[in-house]
Amino acid sequence: MSERRKIYLAGPEVFLADAIDVGRRKKELCAEYGFEGLFPFDNEAPPAEPRRDLSIYRANVDMLRGADCGIFNLTPFRGPHADVGTVFEMGLLTGFGKPAFGYSYEGEALLDRMKRDGQAAFDEASQLWLDASGMAIEDFGRADNLMIDACLAEQGHPLVRRRASAANRFTDLDGFLRCLELERRHFATGRPERGADYAR
Amino acid sequence: MSERRKIYLAGPEVFLADAIDVGRRKKELCAEYGFEGLFPFDNEAPPAEPRRDLSIYRANVDMLRGADCGIFNLTPFRGPHADVGTVFEMGLLTGFGKPAFGYSYEGEALLDRMKRDGQAAFDEASQLWLDASGMAIEDFGRADNLMIDACLAEQGHPLVRRRASAANRFTDLDGFLRCLELERRHFATGRPERGADYAR
Repeated sequence: MSERRKIYLAGPEVFLADAIDVGRRKKELCAEYGFEGLFPFDNEAPPAEPRRDLSIYRANVDMLRGADCGIFNLTPFRGPHADVGTVFEMGLLTGFGKPAFGYSYEGEALLDRMKRDGQAAFDEASQLWLDASGMAIEDFGRADNLMIDACLAEQGHPLVRRRASAANRFTDLDGFLRCLELERRHFATGRPERGADYAR
Repeated sequence: MSERRKIYLAGPEVFLADAIDVGRRKKELCAEYGFEGLFPFDNEAPPAEPRRDLSIYRANVDMLRGADCGIFNLTPFRGPHADVGTVFEMGLLTGFGKPAFGYSYEGEALLDRMKRDGQAAFDEASQLWLDASGMAIEDFGRADNLMIDACLAEQGHPLVRRRASAANRFTDLDGFLRCLELERRHFATGRPERGADYAR
């Protein structure tokens, strides 16, 4: 039997009280689909370690380097955008030339959500929608910043959008399962895999 | 005279009404320091172009690939964290094996800012500080998510923290100038440059 392909599992659920359980569940689902899941907490440095943040960074970068692909939970976190730690890792994996898959538990586009939440005002002068700081809000119908959505769209598997209640938005796994299906198809169809460049 | 090194200029100021002026000023400062600045707006696709977001994505990735390094404005944007577009690009550049430099106009650490802004509550059970969603807030004394801060710290030039008034936090260039100084020193000291791997 050939070695299973490795998936880096990224998302803000590392900040949940039951992060380890969420990681275990995701890894079980990966195994059901024939993959090996790599969860950042698996290499967590002991709390007493000096400069523990640097150790975690190095371990996560090593994991990303050893992964064949990644699944990124891009659900908005502490505001209208995805978690920056997850997004940094998605950029890094893409820079390593490996395919990224992503999902979000906000079904609506960025601008629609910001309108819905009273965070967008239309500016007649510029004919743009602006946030509370006067910064333009992107209007491409995408779930988040164009760099995130386009990275996935360019690879042929746009960001998976699902809806979930506020209570479940960081634990629901329906969007994650959809990404596993997309990965299985991706690796089964003979598309270029190792050595291909997904940062185009 | 040898070709000038190229710096990719990233930050949420692309969403300002006067984004083009900010980009021009940053490029002038780059030239004063002997660098060539690459500003994302320079390759902006015309508004009428279909799937303009994908064109912008491709052009920005090409610019990042052609850059020798990057300066990232990591000032918090629409919440307590940096702009996800900027952070994605920082991950991508790091994955390409090129050095990143970053600055922020929040002088305080992430947890201290969230406490200050009433976004953090101490949880006796877990002995952790939690946000409004019950997610743990990192407590490493860093400006943002550990992946962002550690990426820069690992390269020997930690995130530059400055203070600015709310009105100036996306236009002040003091932190940017400090990054230019750091870059000049970086490239002058004979540290490994091209081909070096900054994603360790």
